Amino acid sequence: MISVDEKELLAERLVTGNLHKIRMLVAGLEPDELAEIINSSKDIDFGKVFRVLEPEKAISTFEHLDFDIQIELLDSFPPEQISETLTKISADDRTAFFEELSEDTLQKYLSLLTDEERKTANQLLQYPEDSIGRLMTPDFVSVKEDWTVGQSLDYIRKFGRDSETLNNIYVTDTQGFLIDDIRVREFLLSALDRRVSDLMDRQFVALSAKDDQESAVKAFKQTDRVALPVTDFKGLLLGIITFDDVMDVMEEEDTEDIQKFGGTEALDEPYLKVSLFKMIGKRAGWLVILFIGEMLTASAMAFFEDEISKAVVLALFVPLIISSGGNSGSQAATLIIRAMALGEVTLERWWDVIRREFLSGLVLGTLLGIIGFLRIFAWSFFTNIYGPHWMLIGYTVGFSLIGVVMFGTIVGSMLPIILKRLGADPAVSSAPFIATLVDVTGLLIYFSVAYFILEGSLL
Amino acid sequence: MISVDEKELLAERLVTGNLHKIRMLVAGLEPDELAEIINSSKDIDFGKVFRVLEPEKAISTFEHLDFDIQIELLDSFPPEQISETLTKISADDRTAFFEELSEDTLQKYLSLLTDEERKTANQLLQYPEDSIGRLMTPDFVSVKEDWTVGQSLDYIRKFGRDSETLNNIYVTDTQGFLIDDIRVREFLLSALDRRVSDLMDRQFVALSAKDDQESAVKAFKQTDRVALPVTDFKGLLLGIITFDDVMDVMEEEDTEDIQKFGGTEALDEPYLKVSLFKMIGKRAGWLVILFIGEMLTASAMAFFEDEISKAVVLALFVPLIISSGGNSGSQAATLIIRAMALGEVTLERWWDVIRREFLSGLVLGTLLGIIGFLRIFAWSFFTNIYGPHWMLIGYTVGFSLIGVVMFGTIVGSMLPIILKRLGADPAVSSAPFIATLVDVTGLLIYFSVAYFILEGSLL
Repeated sequence: MISVDEKELLAERLVTGNLHKIRMLVAGLEPDELAEIINSSKDIDFGKVFRVLEPEKAISTFEHLDFDIQIELLDSFPPEQISETLTKISADDRTAFFEELSEDTLQKYLSLLTDEERKTANQLLQYPEDSIGRLMTPDFVSVKEDWTVGQSLDYIRKFGRDSETLNNIYVTDTQGFLIDDIRVREFLLSALDRRVSDLMDRQFVALSAKDDQESAVKAFKQTDRVALPVTDFKGLLLGIITFDDVMDVMEEEDTEDIQKFGGTEALDEPYLKVSLFKMIGKRAGWLVILFIGEMLTASAMAFFEDEISKAVVLALFVPLIISSGGNSGSQAATLIIRAMALGEVTLERWWDVIRREFLSGLVLGTLLGIIGFLRIFAWSFFTNIYGPHWMLIGYTVGFSLIGVVMFGTIVGSMLPIILKRLGADPAVSSAPFIATLVDVTGLLIYFSVAYFILEGSLL
Repeated sequence: MISVDEKELLAERLVTGNLHKIRMLVAGLEPDELAEIINSSKDIDFGKVFRVLEPEKAISTFEHLDFDIQIELLDSFPPEQISETLTKISADDRTAFFEELSEDTLQKYLSLLTDEERKTANQLLQYPEDSIGRLMTPDFVSVKEDWTVGQSLDYIRKFGRDSETLNNIYVTDTQGFLIDDIRVREFLLSALDRRVSDLMDRQFVALSAKDDQESAVKAFKQTDRVALPVTDFKGLLLGIITFDDVMDVMEEEDTEDIQKFGGTEALDEPYLKVSLFKMIGKRAGWLVILFIGEMLTASAMAFFEDEISKAVVLALFVPLIISSGGNSGSQAATLIIRAMALGEVTLERWWDVIRREFLSGLVLGTLLGIIGFLRIFAWSFFTNIYGPHWMLIGYTVGFSLIGVVMFGTIVGSMLPIILKRLGADPAVSSAPFIATLVDVTGLLIYFSVAYFILEGSLL
């Protein structure tokens, strides 16, 4: 891996160097390193860099480039070179690239492919978005069970060159149905005259091409395999997916969850690359919804306007009390959303969750209640800021905090579960969303407790 | 992969079945599937299940069990079996298991290992926590550059059995220094009489054993390798780490970030498994800090008590205004924290960030300001709720919203950057933390705007 400093230095040299120097420089870099340098510098003439790369390295580098640079680069190529590049990049990377294109551009590029490649590309694009089929590559090696290990290795040496990975070897029957998935290590460690059937245990994990990519992430986590076979619903082997594509999916999913949890729609593009206009759009939606929801606090406060004007002191603690509910709710929601994403908490265990959160809320609420009371006690000891009824105010704040924090934790923990039960995304119950819900109710709790405790004295 | 229903059914049968039935059942399951079933059911007598497993499968299953079940299981074994189990599980899984043990138990288990395995275990445990050394396994295969491909394959067939992965073959010089890292596919695709040196490009990515595990995650993302070599600072090959361990690290890191972002310390254990007492402890810390911070709002409100008692209507909009600042700040903070975790935003680009957030804040604040004004306008059209000066109040709310939202986005985006600059974890600037910061300042902005607009009329 290269450091940031090295990267800048190399980028600098790629910008200023002549062809000869560039050739020397890129010879010493791995394709992913070179791509990283190109991705992070605006000034590199990547057309020039690509001209000096040997064809295979150029393809690998292309696969690692950012989408916008890929497009710009392709557009600078003559048609034959576009066609060659698109044909040579692996099927899964090509699908990922095609997904980003507008319909027009997609058709333009598809028309440049060979007939066979176009067929493959079209097939992969027919799977639903976010399905495993889109991540799949049809380039794999399969052997037959009656072959010997030696025969299989010879076959792989001859026909394996196009396979995306040789870490797993697939065994299919004569009709192409998958019957086993064997790590290459078994082949490497076996005597050459053993039969493939001797290595087989007929136990394998296969993914279904139409399933959601999320299930692929789970399968990879469980099996520790570096590639998994993909079949159709009948068990016909269609292709494979490899761990690196799944790592990307995992990262994207976590990013979406985190962004939703922060109260914004998922950006789907890197922060500094998404257009300002688009980003504001993604943020405005939720911000406005939350704002409109929060307007209910103004109505709730208006409802208690008489009480406030009689005892202005009550207004002083409004932000403190409602924010405590929001904070405890946000904690609970985060823990539950993440635990559900990791499969640690399932819907059936809601009762365990509610029991834990009830107790947590009670303890945490009591803790904050005591601190709140002590604060009012301490201030009133030295000043007259809270008037002669300070102790009653202290009770009001203390008991309200217990109620609000308990309400916050229960809502925060149950809302994600309810959303999931309804088939919605639990991550929608973001910190700001929970805070807004709890703010309104928090006011009702606070003023009810105040009414109960202060009636006859302040109210 | 097995579905939840199947899992429950199988668990049920493992609980009620006799030895013969259990033997039949487990024969049809992969180790990871079996481990998953045992992990998720409390009633299985796993001692019984383990007695019927063949030794190799028992070890693989053990590696996939949860820590508490591993412990319970080991404690049920006679010493020889403990020693055998600990010796046979792979070095990296063993280190992970040992890390969780108390010093006493660790010593007890270490004493049961063979001398050589104990040496390895001790060595791996000497690397700092969260360092790559802890994830490493010293079981790998290396070949010499003057060997032929055929010789190398013979060597691997003989000595490769203990290697954690055979997906990459390492080339070392006579002293053990790493000189290349070659995918096994190159060996499989080459003629048997070619020299290893023909396959070499002497370009490889090696990790340093003392480096943080985070750098391993980055390297795996960039290189698309399934295993990476680990060297000491001089370049001596010490071991390898494999992608499955790195996927776990990646998931743990994202979990920590998400939990911190929700305003709680990282739990470090699954939600339903961590003790209630410990969980409350992890939540109480931040909740109390935020509460104490939020107490400043009570002071700020007290400072404006005169204004509030003159114009109680001002109090009505307090929750609405401060929460809008918190929400917009939370959005900005999430986007920046995640972008920094993914390397999309670096410290040097803070100026690009602040420019984007300034504009976003301006647009979003204006949007909310207009909605806020319209709401006051609409209500005042039909009722007299906001009194004769409703239009001035509308201006106050509208302009305050612009100020508060802008302040929120700037604080939310800059705080993670500043924290990182200071060497702290950016994820500490959680949604609740930002909200608390912005609440206090939001009140100051609101009442200052109110003073400016309403002086002479309401105030």
